[in-house]
Amino acid sequence: MEKIFNKDLNRNILLTHFRFEIIHRSKKSRARVGKIYTPHGIIDTPGFVAVGTNGTLKALDNATLDGLGLQLMFANTYHLLLHPGSKLIAQAGGIHKFANRKSPIITDSGGFQVFSLAYGGVAQELKSKGQKKHDNSIVKINEEGVLFRSYRDGSKILLTPETSIQAQKEIGADIIVSFDELLPYHADKKYLMRSLQRTHRWEKRSLEEHKKNINNQALYAVLHGGVDKELRKKSCDYLSKLDFDGFAIGGSVGKDRFEMFEMLKFLMPNLPEDKPNHLLGIGDLESIKGIVPLGVDTFDSSHPTRCARHGLVFTKKGTMRIIKSGNVNNFGPIENNCKCPVCQKYSLSYVCHLFKAKEITGLILATIHNVYFMIELMKRYREKILNDEI
Amino acid sequence: MEKIFNKDLNRNILLTHFRFEIIHRSKKSRARVGKIYTPHGIIDTPGFVAVGTNGTLKALDNATLDGLGLQLMFANTYHLLLHPGSKLIAQAGGIHKFANRKSPIITDSGGFQVFSLAYGGVAQELKSKGQKKHDNSIVKINEEGVLFRSYRDGSKILLTPETSIQAQKEIGADIIVSFDELLPYHADKKYLMRSLQRTHRWEKRSLEEHKKNINNQALYAVLHGGVDKELRKKSCDYLSKLDFDGFAIGGSVGKDRFEMFEMLKFLMPNLPEDKPNHLLGIGDLESIKGIVPLGVDTFDSSHPTRCARHGLVFTKKGTMRIIKSGNVNNFGPIENNCKCPVCQKYSLSYVCHLFKAKEITGLILATIHNVYFMIELMKRYREKILNDEI
Repeated sequence: MEKIFNKDLNRNILLTHFRFEIIHRSKKSRARVGKIYTPHGIIDTPGFVAVGTNGTLKALDNATLDGLGLQLMFANTYHLLLHPGSKLIAQAGGIHKFANRKSPIITDSGGFQVFSLAYGGVAQELKSKGQKKHDNSIVKINEEGVLFRSYRDGSKILLTPETSIQAQKEIGADIIVSFDELLPYHADKKYLMRSLQRTHRWEKRSLEEHKKNINNQALYAVLHGGVDKELRKKSCDYLSKLDFDGFAIGGSVGKDRFEMFEMLKFLMPNLPEDKPNHLLGIGDLESIKGIVPLGVDTFDSSHPTRCARHGLVFTKKGTMRIIKSGNVNNFGPIENNCKCPVCQKYSLSYVCHLFKAKEITGLILATIHNVYFMIELMKRYREKILNDEI
Repeated sequence: MEKIFNKDLNRNILLTHFRFEIIHRSKKSRARVGKIYTPHGIIDTPGFVAVGTNGTLKALDNATLDGLGLQLMFANTYHLLLHPGSKLIAQAGGIHKFANRKSPIITDSGGFQVFSLAYGGVAQELKSKGQKKHDNSIVKINEEGVLFRSYRDGSKILLTPETSIQAQKEIGADIIVSFDELLPYHADKKYLMRSLQRTHRWEKRSLEEHKKNINNQALYAVLHGGVDKELRKKSCDYLSKLDFDGFAIGGSVGKDRFEMFEMLKFLMPNLPEDKPNHLLGIGDLESIKGIVPLGVDTFDSSHPTRCARHGLVFTKKGTMRIIKSGNVNNFGPIENNCKCPVCQKYSLSYVCHLFKAKEITGLILATIHNVYFMIELMKRYREKILNDEI
């Protein structure tokens, strides 16, 4: 394991081991400012985690991303398993070397995608009111794990706690995640309970597999129990007794923001306070406003990058459609006083023109702006917590 | 007009005026090495001109492009007229400021696109063997100019020598081009002759319009006459007597490379030797090999960037398909010893993975590599000419 200096603090701490440090607890809420130390650098919390499914953010290369200062990138084991395969990434020297990313990376277990592709994703599943149970990609779920079909070539792949952890070891992210079953929002309580117990057994097996070769990676548990507080409490109690390095909140935490905030209000105090937590798949601006005071440390979302590709840019005044009447005549930047490389160099007029002309360059510039916005937004949140303002 | 230092030469030449300097004439062929001085810097010749139709290369932003060292970008007046409009670019402070490009830009007259969109482009027109005469985008061609319909909103636009030059003044490129009629390969001689005479009158009017306000821009004539040597000679004779700053070779110069080389062999000695020339729309690697010894100074093509987006990368050994069996296992760069930012940071394996995963990032990286390749290729050509090797 290469030893890395903590350049951020100009101190000579060897960042060979995963460690979480709480810098400040707000006097006003459960919000906290912390630092997660990883082999590839520090993650300041609360922090936004951008999604780079295939080992890259969409429309941005990792050298540019490192330059922006994004501290943690989320890559998807499921997609990397289907292509190029975890063994190939291991041969390349691990995901950091393969993707030329200098900063920390987290991978999920692969389970989420297996199940969400089968159920059609949370939003679609909610829309279908639970009527859509399965497509035919999942061949079998049993105690061992889940057998599914690759959407690329139809080949059958068995994902178990052991194979998921082994794959994540080969990929070599700084933080990896236990194998779990993602249940749809409309699961009935009986199935939810049975599934939760099996997920707990899967997570215990994940931890055991992890301990065979820690490989300087941190392993997060995934809390489940759907929208049932009793089951969520059970999941917290069970998993927090095990020796995980952090706790991710998975599964459906509600059909809307209100339900999510309610569930997190209940859930967060049940998590081990000295371990970092991660809220999976949430990252729209309204949700962030609600989850930071509840003590969420990190959260990942493809929302900012997807918005960018759809021509929606973030500003302090709100989200703006790039192709909007008047924008092509605005020779100022996307946002005044924004220090991002796009606002420093290009006008809103030009970016608007690129979108109107359907130029890929427009997607690149909007993505840079939105990712930078998220990084700065989280800096401001941390500042406010340090001042006990939230 | 801002005065700019010639940083390239570390000499204090004020680059306020367009100037062409021949550094070396090969002893072996008509090839020559030169420097075109423009208000935005030097263009070394022979040099490749990348196409940035809408004021950007596809999948690359201009800051990145400047970093690669591309000396001349070709933007299309036709597209810029339709969006965002030349008046808006003037309001923005000109194309360099609008698009954040520090280095030289050339625009065409708009005529090429009006006619080529109507005829369906050279390749399509050749395929149709001249049967396809017009779509309905051209409403009227007469002595005054051409009235056509915008494909964006159906509005009618009149392009004349005067309006084209005025638009190019508003856009503000370093080099602008006279208004001409592009004839299809299959035009009959009678029409070709009549059209050539009108084009000559249009070019003279372009020059007169240009001289009303030179605006520190250089104006190139466009030589026509199709595949008829007699007419080509007439065009050279007529246009070279007028006070143009350079000479572009337009229209069809042949249905294949052989015909093109034959025509250029005949044509090039008829051009004023002390003025720079530009071959319009040619830039594939095989053609370059043939045209450089004939004395072509600059040439533009979207070929390298389009190839990149189709997953074809250039190497000294030839063009390579990125998604090729074995490439995903190749942890070396796209090309050994290539100093481009992509080969310095990313493996062929990773770029191949990005293309397989259909990531936009793949298009970005392949484009950077190919543009850099073209820049380096032309450096090698100039080196060889300096050594009288070609």
